[in-house]
Order: sequence, then structure tokens, then C-alpha cells
Amino acid sequence: MKAIIIGIPGVGKTTVLKEASKQLPKYETVNFGTKMLETAKKREIVEDRDQIRKLSPEKTKKLQKETAKKMKKKKKLLIDTHLAIETPKGIVPGIPKWVAEKIKPDRIILIEAEPNEIRSRRKKDKTRKRSDFTLPPEQHQKLNRYYAASISTITGAVIKIIKNKPNKSKKAGKELVKTMKE
Amino acid sequence: MKAIIIGIPGVGKTTVLKEASKQLPKYETVNFGTKMLETAKKREIVEDRDQIRKLSPEKTKKLQKETAKKMKKKKKLLIDTHLAIETPKGIVPGIPKWVAEKIKPDRIILIEAEPNEIRSRRKKDKTRKRSDFTLPPEQHQKLNRYYAASISTITGAVIKIIKNKPNKSKKAGKELVKTMKE
Amino acid sequence: MKAIIIGIPGVGKTTVLKEASKQLPKYETVNFGTKMLETAKKREIVEDRDQIRKLSPEKTKKLQKETAKKMKKKKKLLIDTHLAIETPKGIVPGIPKWVAEKIKPDRIILIEAEPNEIRSRRKKDKTRKRSDFTLPPEQHQKLNRYYAASISTITGAVIKIIKNKPNKSKKAGKELVKTMKE
Repeated sequence: MKAIIIGIPGVGKTTVLKEASKQLPKYETVNFGTKMLETAKKREIVEDRDQIRKLSPEKTKKLQKETAKKMKKKKKLLIDTHLAIETPKGIVPGIPKWVAEKIKPDRIILIEAEPNEIRSRRKKDKTRKRSDFTLPPEQHQKLNRYYAASISTITGAVIKIIKNKPNKSKKAGKELVKTMKE
Repeated sequence: MKAIIIGIPGVGKTTVLKEASKQLPKYETVNFGTKMLETAKKREIVEDRDQIRKLSPEKTKKLQKETAKKMKKKKKLLIDTHLAIETPKGIVPGIPKWVAEKIKPDRIILIEAEPNEIRSRRKKDKTRKRSDFTLPPEQHQKLNRYYAASISTITGAVIKIIKNKPNKSKKAGKELVKTMKE
Repeated sequence: MKAIIIGIPGVGKTTVLKEASKQLPKYETVNFGTKMLETAKKREIVEDRDQIRKLSPEKTKKLQKETAKKMKKKKKLLIDTHLAIETPKGIVPGIPKWVAEKIKPDRIILIEAEPNEIRSRRKKDKTRKRSDFTLPPEQHQKLNRYYAASISTITGAVIKIIKNKPNKSKKAGKELVKTMKE
């Protein structure tokens, strides 16, 4: 099975994903953005992640397609990625139709947390600037749900909503594992 | 015209649909799940409804397509079905793209009720276990709206939201009839 | 770049759009409904806007496609249109898939306002009847977001949400301009 794992910054996705990966030894965890960068470097289109963001929509589309194509062949995959990506220009779709149709995910896993919990985690995180976030977490999480429904309609993927409560990432990880078991 | 009629458990959909059917004598009311079961039995794929749930995604997809195909030819149809189907694995899309494109619904009718009203109806209903529902009704009804918008974009179907208030199923039925009149 | 500009009645879209147009001299602003009417008149299908609403779904679809096709060739376009269109029969999708895929918008710009602000603007507007609106503004704006996510998934368009605060349409206009700058 293939799953795309979604969670806005501050939700604790990385920890939940680590917990789940331990219990899914046959699964490979990949980061879609990192894979895109690798592909782009190989093609000598870009040198770093920053240049990827500045690519034309056409080049981005091609790069997304190529990256997704590689994942097509894999059978057991957890894809760490984003649905509604907040950028200065607006919300960029992380999984447009052409990516969704290539990946053909069986699951869309939305890791969500309480908005106040997210805000507090973001404040502690020194690697992020406050100005990076203008969209309130409650709205951002909802936008992810809207995108998830759209992708679910197109691909037939099952949506699993997992609540990551404070100090309960193990429990959230277990829930993730459970939805992946056939 | 063809309509898909949506409402989460406890919303009172069956009663509203009965009220509407009486006033739409030229319309046939079908249950998508029942039709899928009939098709599957004829094909000797399954023996009961429970086995349908356990089919592989590929077989399910084929079965959905075949069932939808039969409805394609009908002209006046009320299709009793679900959009966001709550299962232990997550939310299953009741009307994925390949079903929507076959049925080509003219209307997506969302029968909604107040969350507290739904909760109280569910408690009274002895045929359902409480553990069947983990998704709060307010969130479930919203998920149905997200799916409805996605299907409406793909098919051009008109979304009609009907509020089923306590002891007002006749009124709700009339609203349903009104949106079906050309 | 091409953008579709969305806002429910009473949100102040016209003013924001005027502010933005002044600062985007190379952009042409078109109203999708007006363009549809022009096309229909040329084809001698209708004589006025009212007749357009009464066209069969098939004729509407054809007309939408033809109108969208003309916009396909344009490079710098602000398209004033609607996503969730409130009608007596229900919510009609303003930008179904076949229109979205022809226009290929780079941006979906959602101009939103506080529901109470919208209600007060609608009351002052003598050209609208109160009975025209049965959908509460908060729900209508959310439906637009659902449709936007669906179109964004299909086309890859970036969603920009702009809040139009009282007496701040200039600021909203500037935000619109900013998201259009490459």
C-alpha cells in the first residue's frame, strides 16, 4: 500500500511518522520534496531546494510527474508531503491531479493537532520564522481536508484523520500503522 | 434527471426519501450498495454484503463501475448512497470519479440535520452500535460537503443542501421534490 | 498569468477588482457571465441573460466551453466569475472541470469578508432582494473554498485568500496585485 502523510508545520508529523515507521519495517519512508530535489539535481535543472521554488509552473509540473513516476513502481511507501502549501503567493497544491494519478495513494493520512498546540510548538521551533505563517492553523488544517477530499474522489484513496495529542505521538503512530495493515 | 441522495446515519434520510418518492412517481429509487451487492452476487464474486467490504480495491472499483454503468441508461433516478463512508480504516469515498462520471448526476442532495439531533437519533436506534461512529456528526457532514464540491466540479452537478428538522421530514421531502422539477 | 476572481455578493469584489486593475495595466478584466452572454447572442441561442439561465445543461456546457476557449489564448487575464452559484435549484458550479481545464487559471483569488459585513452591505444594496440569499454568507464562502481546492487539484492553480475589511479595499487590491506579480 501507498500512503501520503500530511500535517501542517507544528503538528508533530515527523515524530508520528518515526513511530509508525518502526512498526512498518517493510515500508520505505520518502519525502516528496527531497525526491523532487534529487531528480532536479540529476537533470541539472537546479542546485538547491530554493531554486526549485522558483521554477516555472511547466518545469515544476514535469519535475513532479517524474518524481511521482518513480514512486509508482514501489509497493510499500509512506510519502511525507504536503497538500496545501503556504507560500507568499498563496496556497500551492502539493498533490495536484497529475501527481495523485501517478502515485495512486491507497491512503491519505491527515495528522492533525489542536490549533493552540500547533501555535505553541511553532513558537518553540527556532528554525521557523513567525512570518512564515499567515494562515491560522485551524484554516490550514481544513484546507488540507478539502484537498484530501478532492484527491480521494479522483483516486479512490481512503482518508484517515489522526489526532496527535500532546505526548501521545506513540498512540498516533499506532493509529497510522493500523490503517496500513491489510 | 438523476440525483444522488446523501445523509449520514441518524439524519433521517430514509424518511425524507420516502416522502419525496411519493411525489415523484416517475422516479425509481435505488440503493447503490444494494445494487452493488446484486451485481456481485450475479457475478458470483460474493455471497453477502460483508464480503463486499473485504474485496480488493481493484475488484471494488470494477464492481462500482459495473453498477454505475447500469444506472447510466436510466433517466429518472434517485440514488440512495453515501459520500464519506466511515470505516475502521478511514473514510472511504462512496462516489469516486469513475462512479461519478458513469452516473453523471444532475443533483447531489445533501440531507443534513443538527448534530445533536443526529446523536439523539443514533442513541435510539438499537440496530447501530455506538462504536460504529467515531467521527463527530458535524465533521462528517462537512466531509460530505467537501466530497460534494469535488464531484460537482467534475460532473457539473448542482448541490442541494436540505435541512431535516425534527418532525419536519415532509417539508424536507418537498424541498427534495422541488429541486428535481425541471 | 490568468486568475479567476471569486467573491460572494456583498463582499465588495467589484471595488477590489477595480483597485487591482489600475495597478495591472497589462491585464484585461473580463466577466465570465458577460462573455457567455456575448457568445450566446452571437450564436443566436439567447437574447438576454435570463434566457441563459434556462438553457439545458448540455447547451450550457457547450456555451461555457466555447467561452472558456476564447480565454485560453489570452495571457494576462483577470476573470471575474463565481464558484458556488446560489440558485433556487441549489448550488451550481461556476467553474466545472471542463471550464477549469480550458482556462487553466494560475490563480484562484477568493475575496472574502466578515459575514456580518456582507449582510450589512447586502441590506444597503437596493438592487438585490433579500430572498435572493438563503445560504448564510459563512457557509457560502466555505463552499467557495471547497470548490477552489477541487479546481486547484485539477489545474494546479494557487489559491489566494484575500480579506476585504471595511474601508480597506485598496489594501485588498494591493494584495491581489502582489499575487499576480511574477
